[in-house]
Amino acid sequence: KAGIIMGSKSDLPVMNDAADIFKEFGVEFEITVVSAHRTPERMFEYAKNAASRGLKVIIAGAGGAAHLPGMVASITTLPVIGVPVKSSNSIDGWDSILSILQMPNGIPVATVALNAAKNAGLLAVQILSTADASLAEKMQAYKDELRKKVEESAAEMEK
Amino acid sequence: KAGIIMGSKSDLPVMNDAADIFKEFGVEFEITVVSAHRTPERMFEYAKNAASRGLKVIIAGAGGAAHLPGMVASITTLPVIGVPVKSSNSIDGWDSILSILQMPNGIPVATVALNAAKNAGLLAVQILSTADASLAEKMQAYKDELRKKVEESAAEMEK
Amino acid sequence: KAGIIMGSKSDLPVMNDAADIFKEFGVEFEITVVSAHRTPERMFEYAKNAASRGLKVIIAGAGGAAHLPGMVASITTLPVIGVPVKSSNSIDGWDSILSILQMPNGIPVATVALNAAKNAGLLAVQILSTADASLAEKMQAYKDELRKKVEESAAEMEK
Amino acid sequence: KAGIIMGSKSDLPVMNDAADIFKEFGVEFEITVVSAHRTPERMFEYAKNAASRGLKVIIAGAGGAAHLPGMVASITTLPVIGVPVKSSNSIDGWDSILSILQMPNGIPVATVALNAAKNAGLLAVQILSTADASLAEKMQAYKDELRKKVEESAAEMEK
Amino acid sequence: KAGIIMGSKSDLPVMNDAADIFKEFGVEFEITVVSAHRTPERMFEYAKNAASRGLKVIIAGAGGAAHLPGMVASITTLPVIGVPVKSSNSIDGWDSILSILQMPNGIPVATVALNAAKNAGLLAVQILSTADASLAEKMQAYKDELRKKVEESAAEMEK
Amino acid sequence: KAGIIMGSKSDLPVMNDAADIFKEFGVEFEITVVSAHRTPERMFEYAKNAASRGLKVIIAGAGGAAHLPGMVASITTLPVIGVPVKSSNSIDGWDSILSILQMPNGIPVATVALNAAKNAGLLAVQILSTADASLAEKMQAYKDELRKKVEESAAEMEK
Amino acid sequence: KAGIIMGSKSDLPVMNDAADIFKEFGVEFEITVVSAHRTPERMFEYAKNAASRGLKVIIAGAGGAAHLPGMVASITTLPVIGVPVKSSNSIDGWDSILSILQMPNGIPVATVALNAAKNAGLLAVQILSTADASLAEKMQAYKDELRKKVEESAAEMEK
Amino acid sequence: KAGIIMGSKSDLPVMNDAADIFKEFGVEFEITVVSAHRTPERMFEYAKNAASRGLKVIIAGAGGAAHLPGMVASITTLPVIGVPVKSSNSIDGWDSILSILQMPNGIPVATVALNAAKNAGLLAVQILSTADASLAEKMQAYKDELRKKVEESAAEMEK
Repeated sequence: KAGIIMGSKSDLPVMNDAADIFKEFGVEFEITVVSAHRTPERMFEYAKNAASRGLKVIIAGAGGAAHLPGMVASITTLPVIGVPVKSSNSIDGWDSILSILQMPNGIPVATVALNAAKNAGLLAVQILSTADASLAEKMQAYKDELRKKVEESAAEMEK
Repeated sequence: KAGIIMGSKSDLPVMNDAADIFKEFGVEFEITVVSAHRTPERMFEYAKNAASRGLKVIIAGAGGAAHLPGMVASITTLPVIGVPVKSSNSIDGWDSILSILQMPNGIPVATVALNAAKNAGLLAVQILSTADASLAEKMQAYKDELRKKVEESAAEMEK
Repeated sequence: KAGIIMGSKSDLPVMNDAADIFKEFGVEFEITVVSAHRTPERMFEYAKNAASRGLKVIIAGAGGAAHLPGMVASITTLPVIGVPVKSSNSIDGWDSILSILQMPNGIPVATVALNAAKNAGLLAVQILSTADASLAEKMQAYKDELRKKVEESAAEMEK
Repeated sequence: KAGIIMGSKSDLPVMNDAADIFKEFGVEFEITVVSAHRTPERMFEYAKNAASRGLKVIIAGAGGAAHLPGMVASITTLPVIGVPVKSSNSIDGWDSILSILQMPNGIPVATVALNAAKNAGLLAVQILSTADASLAEKMQAYKDELRKKVEESAAEMEK
Repeated sequence: KAGIIMGSKSDLPVMNDAADIFKEFGVEFEITVVSAHRTPERMFEYAKNAASRGLKVIIAGAGGAAHLPGMVASITTLPVIGVPVKSSNSIDGWDSILSILQMPNGIPVATVALNAAKNAGLLAVQILSTADASLAEKMQAYKDELRKKVEESAAEMEK
Repeated sequence: KAGIIMGSKSDLPVMNDAADIFKEFGVEFEITVVSAHRTPERMFEYAKNAASRGLKVIIAGAGGAAHLPGMVASITTLPVIGVPVKSSNSIDGWDSILSILQMPNGIPVATVALNAAKNAGLLAVQILSTADASLAEKMQAYKDELRKKVEESAAEMEK
Repeated sequence: KAGIIMGSKSDLPVMNDAADIFKEFGVEFEITVVSAHRTPERMFEYAKNAASRGLKVIIAGAGGAAHLPGMVASITTLPVIGVPVKSSNSIDGWDSILSILQMPNGIPVATVALNAAKNAGLLAVQILSTADASLAEKMQAYKDELRKKVEESAAEMEK
Repeated sequence: KAGIIMGSKSDLPVMNDAADIFKEFGVEFEITVVSAHRTPERMFEYAKNAASRGLKVIIAGAGGAAHLPGMVASITTLPVIGVPVKSSNSIDGWDSILSILQMPNGIPVATVALNAAKNAGLLAVQILSTADASLAEKMQAYKDELRKKVEESAAEMEK
């Protein structure tokens, strides 16, 4: 089971892409708001209990000085995937990217591209696939589908 | 009383400048290591009890994805001053600056320049001065001293 | 009492957020335009007399090569909070951020996030709280309110 | 089993940190040079056969226009962890970070901090932990050790 | 004969400018979609056979972590011109520019400005001109035309 | 007569290049330290009296949040040339460049390259040349000398 | 007499601000298009003859890889003011700023803020003022007007 | 025949890498200093006569506000390869990269990585190869050599 959390409900339009991937791959998940800055205790509880509640991987999205992914990673031993969200007063996304990516030695966060919650979902599926061969097959099928769409675009453009 | 915390003991050469300012101004202080990522519970305790232990202001320094100042600010109601420290694999300091500066609405961190723990100390003194006229006088004397040193440099250069 | 100043009346939509915080917390304040570049003498007078007029903290917002916060800080011993405003020809906000943040040793400015006048107001309240326990209580209540709103968002999303 | 690859043998001093983590956690691994640009076919073969050779996760480090992590991710369904290496003519690390992080939708790379091969190793262990409870326990012990070291630093500094 | 490829059909509005230049100069060309990440084998085939199919120069456009130009350059010996495309979640274009420009020693990509497919087309014509004097003459005529348009603008503005 | 001022005596090794140019061109000048932040009143006096003391142009160098050139320009009507100095904790020079360059409408500063006090001196000479034909001739001779040195380098390299 | 040149007629909306300043101050000027890249010979002629045609100062605006100000400065001994224009595919203005600002030793360009043709005009007036006391008086009056407008804004806001 | 030019003899250590490639591939070349800013007429002559003197491709290296590649490209119809050189006061190389890369429509420069004169040489060989099959063969052999060196590194590391 996977967890999706975000620092603010305004991040939902971005973070929903991760949920859609889980639905597409048939991965059970939960989704909620956990703010490192406005609900630090809730964040602590969430991270502390994540593994015992059966989560295997956590996707955390946040903007600006984005501390949620790194703080959750500091508390749990589960792999944490960080999604830098471009907030309204963002410095072109640099703030959330660097706040999530540049974690100190000892506490990694698996960072994906700006606003790339879809890729966060796919990465979570790949992580779960390491123990679930059927997911790996679905992932291969997903990639085959991507390939076919490009081939169709190519065929159309070459006409 | 003021608190100085840093994410790693390797930040001490930078953060000591704040301690020196407190000694110079006769401000009582404590200094220790609190890592948001390696000791999240210690960080929680520190921030939770800071006010009741008599702290009036906290200076927090950290490098890279610097979450310490913002997380402490999320837990306490005391003013928190953040010092972006340039770590060994820093992206020219941008990572710690943006991780500390770009806090979301609701949870401010008073950010100073890169590695500027001295200015963090002075800012803390100014904050304490709002309730202590003698500190304000010392601050004025400190500024007079700065002015005199420039005037001496000028006199020497104009020779 | 707190002072809010800005380099141009075009900064008012941003800077009003600080005034709203003062109203919410019942902090007396004054608000006006003071341009470091177009009214240097007015700026000097403002900063010189701020403490004697009873101000305890100054919030200064400016865009581009934003010199207002730093210059006011050079003249007064009061704590100065700088709000980098993203002006119309801004280089993504870098210009006002760096012009305010990177102050030399001796003259700190408490810098907040880009356009974050709300956080400037909250930081000013925290500074005033160091000598006013009732403000500290209001700040705690404010944070509790932030927490509740996140919890409500979370409850709704978890449905 | 984990794979560590790098674009050039000059990346070994950085990438060895990942190998050290695997040794510390008792994770079987292989390490070699695979250049996307100088040995594209070797890269293809490596990525194509990685899963069937028993690899569960791949760590790929590269500098400059760092295409190795993303290209390997495009060919395999295994999770790929990318380590941006700061090369000799790097633009402060921005080139390798952005070349690895900003992958298009469909093909994620789990990016870690600049030169952070140690964190890449830890992230790989966390990924393998999702199917191996003993590794999760070792990870908890590793984190406990980190915590203790900070507490020792703190005790020493507080003296 | 020249080849134009792009990582996604969404790059076509930008990349068409190269095709228009080829039409204007009477250079035979083909245009299609080849994705390094979604169709790595197709990309391999394309690059491997480009010279034997009679291509003399390849223009490759891509956005984000833009690996297409560099990977094609790694496989073929033909000159490859890279067009950094500004994608929807681009970090102001820096990601595609640095991913294409900062190639390691041994594998150059001739990089042009952001979104500058027109200049890519002109550069390809200049490359083909080294063996075709008539193209060089057309290029001179093209430049004369540019000059005349500026002179007309100037005459109008000087009125 | 020209004035050279700098925010700190530590800027002298950079700013001396401007003095050397004035000596070479026989332009009378004065040089001193004026700190916007540590001696704001001295700065005011300097700028206020510059024209009446016979100065025709002012060169001002400063690092970090470099307010000296812009503040002097706000007070005098003389042309002010700003030299961004790369200070010890500089963010790669961006801070001083943007603090000097991005002046608001109404108050220009003639900004030169990072640490380019030599060019500041030459620009001042060009400005004085507009009213002094003999200086214009010397400037032409200076440029001829630059040209000859390049030609000598070229001749040597072509051997 | 002053010259205003720009690399493309599309720069006119920006560069007109300089012309408006010249009209306001009664400074004779000419305005035209001169492209360093599309009309290099015209650019050469313009710069070569500028002084003999009676020009005292040149304002040159350009976007992207903005070579016009620097090339004109390399040919004439007149002071050249550079206006970085933000072009349609600009990297946030960094390209034109750095192309104009970072001139090598020997050939200065007086650079103003992004799109700041108004300030370029004012700087040109200041340069001409060094030999024309009446212009200096007008400049003082202009500054007084700026001051009054701020004071009016302030009075209104303080109501 | 190929031409290598550079803005200053101090660029020679970087630019020599291009000469070495030409020697290795048996391509006739000339190498000299041509400064856009200090010898604009020499630059004009060089570019104007390059084609008639038998040059087929020009490599131009320069640092800072690097105008040489773009200006040469504006005058000749030959393909011009630009090498951004990191000068002593460079803003991390951004200045020379953007000054060379961001050319306006109509005048392309084939830009390579920072200081990558070796790649400039290889790109020139690829351009010449379009009309010289023996050069294409040598290029393939060169690439085979690169591949072998990686394979040897790999074999050694896998021991």
